[in-house]
Amino acid sequence: MGDKQAQWIWYPGDFEIWLRREVEFRRDERGVIVPPIWRVDGPYTSVRFRKTFVTDTGETVKFSADGAMRLQVNGATPDRIPEEGIWFGKGEYALTVEVHHLTRVPSLFVQGETLVSDDSWEVSQLFFSGFVKAGKAGFTDAAVPPSDFRLETMPIEPVKIEPGDRSLFLDFGRQTFGYMQLHDIEGEGKIRLVYGESEEEANDFENCETFDELVISSKKGQEAIVQHSRALRYVRISWEEGVSIDRASLLYEYLPVEYRGSFRCSNDTMNRIWDVAAYTLHLNTREFFLDGLKRDRWVWSGDAYQSYLMNYYLFFDLPTTRRTIVALRGKDPVDHHLNTILDYSLYWFMGLKDYYLYTGDLSFIREQYGRMIGLMDYCINRTNADGMLEGQPGDWVFVDWADIEKEGELAFEQMLFCLSLETVSMFAELLGEAETVVRYHFMAGQLRGHIQNIFWDEEQEAYIHRRVNGAIDSSVTRHPNMMALLFGFLDPTKKKTVKRSVMLNPAVPAITTPYMRFYELAAMCEIGEHAYVLDEMLGYWGGMLELGATSFWEEYDPHATLSEQYAMYGRKYGKSLCHAWGASPLYLTGKYFLGVTPAKPGYEEILIRPALGGLEWMEGKVPVPAGEVALYMDTTTIRVSVPAGTGRLQFRSGRSPESIGGVLYRLEPNLYELRLDKPGHEYVVYYAAEENR
Amino acid sequence: MGDKQAQWIWYPGDFEIWLRREVEFRRDERGVIVPPIWRVDGPYTSVRFRKTFVTDTGETVKFSADGAMRLQVNGATPDRIPEEGIWFGKGEYALTVEVHHLTRVPSLFVQGETLVSDDSWEVSQLFFSGFVKAGKAGFTDAAVPPSDFRLETMPIEPVKIEPGDRSLFLDFGRQTFGYMQLHDIEGEGKIRLVYGESEEEANDFENCETFDELVISSKKGQEAIVQHSRALRYVRISWEEGVSIDRASLLYEYLPVEYRGSFRCSNDTMNRIWDVAAYTLHLNTREFFLDGLKRDRWVWSGDAYQSYLMNYYLFFDLPTTRRTIVALRGKDPVDHHLNTILDYSLYWFMGLKDYYLYTGDLSFIREQYGRMIGLMDYCINRTNADGMLEGQPGDWVFVDWADIEKEGELAFEQMLFCLSLETVSMFAELLGEAETVVRYHFMAGQLRGHIQNIFWDEEQEAYIHRRVNGAIDSSVTRHPNMMALLFGFLDPTKKKTVKRSVMLNPAVPAITTPYMRFYELAAMCEIGEHAYVLDEMLGYWGGMLELGATSFWEEYDPHATLSEQYAMYGRKYGKSLCHAWGASPLYLTGKYFLGVTPAKPGYEEILIRPALGGLEWMEGKVPVPAGEVALYMDTTTIRVSVPAGTGRLQFRSGRSPESIGGVLYRLEPNLYELRLDKPGHEYVVYYAAEENR
Repeated sequence: MGDKQAQWIWYPGDFEIWLRREVEFRRDERGVIVPPIWRVDGPYTSVRFRKTFVTDTGETVKFSADGAMRLQVNGATPDRIPEEGIWFGKGEYALTVEVHHLTRVPSLFVQGETLVSDDSWEVSQLFFSGFVKAGKAGFTDAAVPPSDFRLETMPIEPVKIEPGDRSLFLDFGRQTFGYMQLHDIEGEGKIRLVYGESEEEANDFENCETFDELVISSKKGQEAIVQHSRALRYVRISWEEGVSIDRASLLYEYLPVEYRGSFRCSNDTMNRIWDVAAYTLHLNTREFFLDGLKRDRWVWSGDAYQSYLMNYYLFFDLPTTRRTIVALRGKDPVDHHLNTILDYSLYWFMGLKDYYLYTGDLSFIREQYGRMIGLMDYCINRTNADGMLEGQPGDWVFVDWADIEKEGELAFEQMLFCLSLETVSMFAELLGEAETVVRYHFMAGQLRGHIQNIFWDEEQEAYIHRRVNGAIDSSVTRHPNMMALLFGFLDPTKKKTVKRSVMLNPAVPAITTPYMRFYELAAMCEIGEHAYVLDEMLGYWGGMLELGATSFWEEYDPHATLSEQYAMYGRKYGKSLCHAWGASPLYLTGKYFLGVTPAKPGYEEILIRPALGGLEWMEGKVPVPAGEVALYMDTTTIRVSVPAGTGRLQFRSGRSPESIGGVLYRLEPNLYELRLDKPGHEYVVYYAAEENR
Repeated sequence: MGDKQAQWIWYPGDFEIWLRREVEFRRDERGVIVPPIWRVDGPYTSVRFRKTFVTDTGETVKFSADGAMRLQVNGATPDRIPEEGIWFGKGEYALTVEVHHLTRVPSLFVQGETLVSDDSWEVSQLFFSGFVKAGKAGFTDAAVPPSDFRLETMPIEPVKIEPGDRSLFLDFGRQTFGYMQLHDIEGEGKIRLVYGESEEEANDFENCETFDELVISSKKGQEAIVQHSRALRYVRISWEEGVSIDRASLLYEYLPVEYRGSFRCSNDTMNRIWDVAAYTLHLNTREFFLDGLKRDRWVWSGDAYQSYLMNYYLFFDLPTTRRTIVALRGKDPVDHHLNTILDYSLYWFMGLKDYYLYTGDLSFIREQYGRMIGLMDYCINRTNADGMLEGQPGDWVFVDWADIEKEGELAFEQMLFCLSLETVSMFAELLGEAETVVRYHFMAGQLRGHIQNIFWDEEQEAYIHRRVNGAIDSSVTRHPNMMALLFGFLDPTKKKTVKRSVMLNPAVPAITTPYMRFYELAAMCEIGEHAYVLDEMLGYWGGMLELGATSFWEEYDPHATLSEQYAMYGRKYGKSLCHAWGASPLYLTGKYFLGVTPAKPGYEEILIRPALGGLEWMEGKVPVPAGEVALYMDTTTIRVSVPAGTGRLQFRSGRSPESIGGVLYRLEPNLYELRLDKPGHEYVVYYAAEENR
């Protein structure tokens, strides 16, 4: 082994695209594979790596490839590459290595003393195309190429076992995921496993969403691991006469992540909500941020966008974030929107903006820049004469599972599009692409004007829903208004107006999906309605807990009975009971209660604006690149520390506050700021909470 | 089994593209896989078939797929599909079947009584993309899906065996191809096989192009078949001490085709040339028309274009022609020229024109129409301000392995481009695409003008080679002039001029590759120089025979010694000794000596203009869709019959000819025509040959 650390390299994006293909083709409903409804990309099947290598002393270099390999040294091909490596005497060498594989990621591992595979190598997908920096993700074991990537597993036991007549009924105590293991099987015959996220489903073979059937033949004491991973809390295992099974367990499959964020408060229900939300997000944080565990397990851009934000307040897991962003974008050419959904292309840009804001990692943005421009050009090519996006043939205009009109120019979509244009323009500026800045900046400005002039309705004091074929449809929905609150489409006066005219107006149809509640409740926090949001969380997420939820659901109707809760998509157990977008309390508590946000990219400056929202006390941590921000707050005391950089603590106080070892500034009547200049130092503030804040 | 014949169906083009990928990744040089130098396409990994099905009586339908299958009947998914099929009662059904496979062609086989898989089914590659007619190629066995397609094999024995010390040297008597089989192996150790198209190569392990090494372990009487197919006449098999081999043979691999064309004449050397050419073409007519047997075995558009034409005079094998055309075009988007070569994109259009001319099959043209327009638009997007094609970065301007300039606007390339534009315009007209006709017709006309005005040099009485950066390079090469003779860029007067000023002018550099000799000799025939062409064939191809060729070569220099003949590309045995483009005598004899050409598409009218070119007599057959045209000719008698349609025999006679049962017309002094109105009837003409014709 050499001195330097080698790692597997490939064409950038190919590992992520390969992995997505593996994951998305695992969707199996009642024994039938359901392929994705979008174009399925694969890695390039043959690529060419290159590197110029100079050695003054000579060294031996080992080459391994996942795929057929063709090494050329200064244009000549050695017959074969000995396992013990090739000796390169003092000199300069132009190396090229072609690697080809049809189903895995063609990838390369080179280990010498000074020459190792890393992103100083370049790679092209074609002889005649340009070379780019090789892709990598930290696979440093020569024996484990990227296509051997697997999540971790560990055995877990059921908490309750009900033996029956040739059957076992298992309860794992809470929502979980993995591969069932059957122990001490004897005899010959068929075994059936019926999975349930609910007890009802596991006992209803005719209507369950997933099951497995195994045919085993007599080997005394045989053990079997079911091939497919499943989402479950319950499983009914039954078998034919002539078979016997002693016991069963689960090989729990998971991504190892660290729970860096935390939240505890005076309300126990809220604490349980946070715990279950954290577990829900963890279960859906896998090869990628998935939508839900049971059903499709595909990668959806709109769902992932929310997972990114929750993740910044819990795991701060950047590899999964990057994998998801890269995989979602897929290969060129773009010939449909991400997931075929108009809004889902736009969330992709917004996700990049957040990534930069929370991490400060401009190098990843640089790597994605070309693909960003490519997707934006695809969108721009589909705008109408007014530069606005409306659904074209083949587009799915999703917005929400809600009974809203989707034809024509939706205010909601124009806002996302405007934010996307502004994002690309911002990155172009950061990367010194002046011409691109001008182009997109102009388009974004024009669109902001249209949004204001066309969709703002003075009479209703709200953004209206849409315009169709040039005619205003003046119905009001929450969707554009909550986006307007969140993303700066309203001045402070109008913010207050919209709160009354839309957000707290019962005449405007309510939001019913946790997916859109994410934005709705964030928007309410933006206008200072923390107490309202806390009540909603306790009611809505607390409502699921009361029905026995051990992870949060795809959809929840507080007015329906328990047995009605499981159906969706016209199927009795169609609803996913462990859905990433159900975990938004993580985001709401972290961003708006603990109140931690990056004031500068990568938390170089940390803004902390805590709000109790009616809680007696709360404490928690928020991960940032350098460590965790820690905060404790009750109605009279705030304790806070930042791990690096500088922080600004802003809080409201009914009296003139005091601080030990810190200087307080008054920003407005009752609004104060404490500068946190000493990383690691715990600042303490004595103050008096305003009512209901 | 039902009454109707089902066959495997897939997304059109996917079988051919899959097969090409299989074939092109077999290139192995001294144990190292050499991947193609162009983008390697694969089939769509998941596709969706659909069909509306009405039954009045009810029927049972069996479904098989190559890949994961998801059937939907009126929108519902049955749990599983029983092997014995699904019963459909009287009624109407909307069927969709999704099929997914990562490495093979996702394909479907449906067998009912009236419902069968055929091209009345439609297929899309995406949920949201358009449906097109399913692809098929006559695979009617449910147990053999298209991805099981293999060529035929049969064992052949060496004609000479030289046993040595732990070795065998085999000679199969002539060039051949297949998998070596070792019989009665005993012991443990390594066996090496060194292949040679020449005896020298098989005895030169250090420099040979291909070898195999097997490690065997002692099983008495074991038999081994080498994994790789190889081109060879000779093979040196040697083994380590402790191993013994009794004998070896070859599993000859071939495409079963019928030799429908034939040619015999008064010159024995010419007869041998024709036989060896036919065998050469057959060896290279495989999954596709390949370039050569030994080396890359890739599919090259320029090479294939000549094979198509030879094939029309020997096998008239249309499936291989279609497979090759479809595979060469590959998937969208077009992001480089076919094989990365500028001229090779253009030959693709010309090949389609010939396909239509020789077969009359407009339905295949219709299927290719969209891809034709796509490739043409790619070419047009790369034209310069004058609408001409010159090499862009990434383009390979090939023309020929000859020492000619390739930068700038080559007259040769503009001629091919003009013919391509005219071809697309013609097909657009036939398919009723009026706007496309106008567009391409205009561009072709403009280009014809440029070719005449820019490249014709009155002083030299020749097309000059090129223009670079607006400056004329007035050097003269044969290449544009022979294309001009063949493809109507010269009026009759100029034809005679160019014959003298270029074709018979020793000051213009000679053509050295059989590849370009194809066009050169065809051009000479076009201007009536059959005797010259016969001499050239006897000299050039006869020269290879004198050196012991059993198939024709990639390149031949009559002035080099035998040992110098094998080298090419800087490698001692780099030259392919069995190269398709070496078989052009098939085309020259069929088209210009027997003189048979389609006067209307699909030989609806057959033109026969035989020419002895100095031979005492000749006879032969030329395949046409309905059978064979048969012709015998000596200096006083012509006997001819056509299998269908009408024919016109045109011949020169020094005296007034006579015919039994036919009416003769005099077209010009000494040029006569006999109408062949009775299919199957042998017409006999008595005439007097003009000298040297």
